[in-house]
Amino acid sequence: MPIAINGNRLLEDLHAFRRIGGQGTGVVRRAFSPADIEARRLLAAKLEEFGHETLWDPVGNLFGLPPGAARPILIGSHSDTQPEGGWLDGIYGVLVGLEVARASAEGGGPPVAVVSFQDEEGAFASLLGSRYWTGQLARDGLLDRQDSDGRRLGDLIEGVPEIRDAQPVPVERFRCFLEAHIEQGPVLDEEGEALGVVQSIVGTRQFGVTIRGQQNHAGTTPMDRRRDAVTGLTRFAGALHARFQEMRGAHTVWTIGRIVVHPNATSIVPGRVELEVQMRDQDGPRLDAMAETLERLAAEVAEASGLDVELAPRSPLQPTPMAPELIETFAAAAEATAPGQWRHMPSGAMHDAMCVAPHLPTGMLFVPSLGGVSHAFEEDTREADLVTGCAAMARAVELLGA
Amino acid sequence: MPIAINGNRLLEDLHAFRRIGGQGTGVVRRAFSPADIEARRLLAAKLEEFGHETLWDPVGNLFGLPPGAARPILIGSHSDTQPEGGWLDGIYGVLVGLEVARASAEGGGPPVAVVSFQDEEGAFASLLGSRYWTGQLARDGLLDRQDSDGRRLGDLIEGVPEIRDAQPVPVERFRCFLEAHIEQGPVLDEEGEALGVVQSIVGTRQFGVTIRGQQNHAGTTPMDRRRDAVTGLTRFAGALHARFQEMRGAHTVWTIGRIVVHPNATSIVPGRVELEVQMRDQDGPRLDAMAETLERLAAEVAEASGLDVELAPRSPLQPTPMAPELIETFAAAAEATAPGQWRHMPSGAMHDAMCVAPHLPTGMLFVPSLGGVSHAFEEDTREADLVTGCAAMARAVELLGA
Repeated sequence: MPIAINGNRLLEDLHAFRRIGGQGTGVVRRAFSPADIEARRLLAAKLEEFGHETLWDPVGNLFGLPPGAARPILIGSHSDTQPEGGWLDGIYGVLVGLEVARASAEGGGPPVAVVSFQDEEGAFASLLGSRYWTGQLARDGLLDRQDSDGRRLGDLIEGVPEIRDAQPVPVERFRCFLEAHIEQGPVLDEEGEALGVVQSIVGTRQFGVTIRGQQNHAGTTPMDRRRDAVTGLTRFAGALHARFQEMRGAHTVWTIGRIVVHPNATSIVPGRVELEVQMRDQDGPRLDAMAETLERLAAEVAEASGLDVELAPRSPLQPTPMAPELIETFAAAAEATAPGQWRHMPSGAMHDAMCVAPHLPTGMLFVPSLGGVSHAFEEDTREADLVTGCAAMARAVELLGA
Repeated sequence: MPIAINGNRLLEDLHAFRRIGGQGTGVVRRAFSPADIEARRLLAAKLEEFGHETLWDPVGNLFGLPPGAARPILIGSHSDTQPEGGWLDGIYGVLVGLEVARASAEGGGPPVAVVSFQDEEGAFASLLGSRYWTGQLARDGLLDRQDSDGRRLGDLIEGVPEIRDAQPVPVERFRCFLEAHIEQGPVLDEEGEALGVVQSIVGTRQFGVTIRGQQNHAGTTPMDRRRDAVTGLTRFAGALHARFQEMRGAHTVWTIGRIVVHPNATSIVPGRVELEVQMRDQDGPRLDAMAETLERLAAEVAEASGLDVELAPRSPLQPTPMAPELIETFAAAAEATAPGQWRHMPSGAMHDAMCVAPHLPTGMLFVPSLGGVSHAFEEDTREADLVTGCAAMARAVELLGA
């Protein structure tokens, strides 16, 4: 039977949570801040209102479980924010879970559980809650971590009785995990589409690159005698861009987001440049090929320029495919909800779904971000799109329950 | 008659001054520091020992004048240092002046005056002393300046009676100005030459360049929708280098010494890059052509990339030719002192001679810098070369007195 979501109720919930930590149009609700705990307690109250059992776990993940159900569908995301966060990043997926669980319970649909993972945005460790929950992080190793204000995680946990006294919630209690999220990119908005069915969360390869030359006086050192690290940067970055252009796929991206020049003075030939190169793709072998291209180019530039080019590979993240049967379910739900107004797409950003996917069948659904803006107070999505995303999630649950 | 300099006496003087503010192999003797004032007082004492009259001026320039002489030759440089200075930068030219003046006085040669300009290295303003002396800087506008430790120049002057009570020393009292200096570049050292006769002090053109794109998420923003300021930097800097290579002369140099990326985070497509481009040449029209090339390229990159490229031209410095008759005199003196072991060359660095040249006939003589290193504790020159430079200066004075 159909699950009749209540779009106004969803929007009212979104606005109620927007006020918790609200600053202008945005939200500041860092993990374990008073606003974060207040938001979790409000979520627990709303879950209990329609009869769900609430369970906190030992790092602050909050679950709402339908009473008596074996292996319910789990829907959610996170309710903590960036230091200057938008009003939708994370909480949208949690409240979609709340509304679908509530509507399904009201209408006798399939049992739906809800989760708000803790600290997805990395006040203490990025994706902390979902990594802990899936056994990728041990709690003991986290307790001495401090946030940017010097607050120790262990002390904060001691201050919240629901978390301090909590027991773990086994992954095996759930059938699958569904996460709705704003896209945080411009594609759906620019294409005028309402929904994105995520095929995979992209993997990343990243290298720290240090180019070393010889620091020198910019007036007295002839060009032919220079070993200028910025000249090396220009040559390396320009050639890298050209080669990556040739090997890119439809969704490949790469970024040099960080450059530090030493000593960074107008009249001194730079002796050292440090940069970070990051590549993302849903295609693991392509990422490997890009990494090899980068390594080869580093050697070529060093050879041709007489500079030292040193690479520090950062921990790679493999692409995480979503479960094929859930991609199909979401595709069917999207076509039913917004015919011809949706697409398959990768997620360029990381999400809790990435951590859950190796342990439970996992699917993700995107709604548009206006102008692609996120991680900023200006982040926004049209209300009609927010409701459409929730309706598509409800439709997916119907299909899974059929 | 020949001026018989005493090489050992010169070296003893150099080592005596090296101890004032000495740190390891280097010297820290910032303008108006206790070490700087101590060094000036020692110089005054050494000048008075052989009968010179010493005159301080109202910003701390110190002159030693041969008694009764009308329009003596002025020889000198500066005795203040960089924050981490070498033991020769500046003081070498002052002590060459001292030794030549002393030897000339002893041997009945031409009258030679000596100067140590104040704050060439810019603790308060670069070339402060020689710019004040030649009327390019007014003293009143300098008094509220502070050094990096927050010391106010006016207060420091009040603390030194010789300067507080001083009267200006007119430029017209001197016939010409001769400055000996370490090269601070690698040319003489690498070529195995002992002396460089400076033809001109190079001019500079400099531009602040701001490249503005759109800051964005490095995972969710497709390549084709990016306006990446670092990609603009790479394109601009690479093309600039290639075009400048085509138009360079033997002594042309250019440097991108400073780059600042915003927000400079690994996972964010950079929205803004600021850089400084500096060009130096002894050929003014070539500098103008390079500036035009840079402006044209900025417009091309903006057009091709959709980025905003904004230029902020800094104050240009025109090339400063040395007086032709003094170039000839130094060339003859160099050939007499180190036959076949010298060259004509430009000065890529600025010197007090640059400020004096428009007001008095001015010449400069270089001695080698080992490895081209300067503005560093490691700065050094072979003792034999230090003595050769002094002997060539004495020979030039003989020629001028003939």
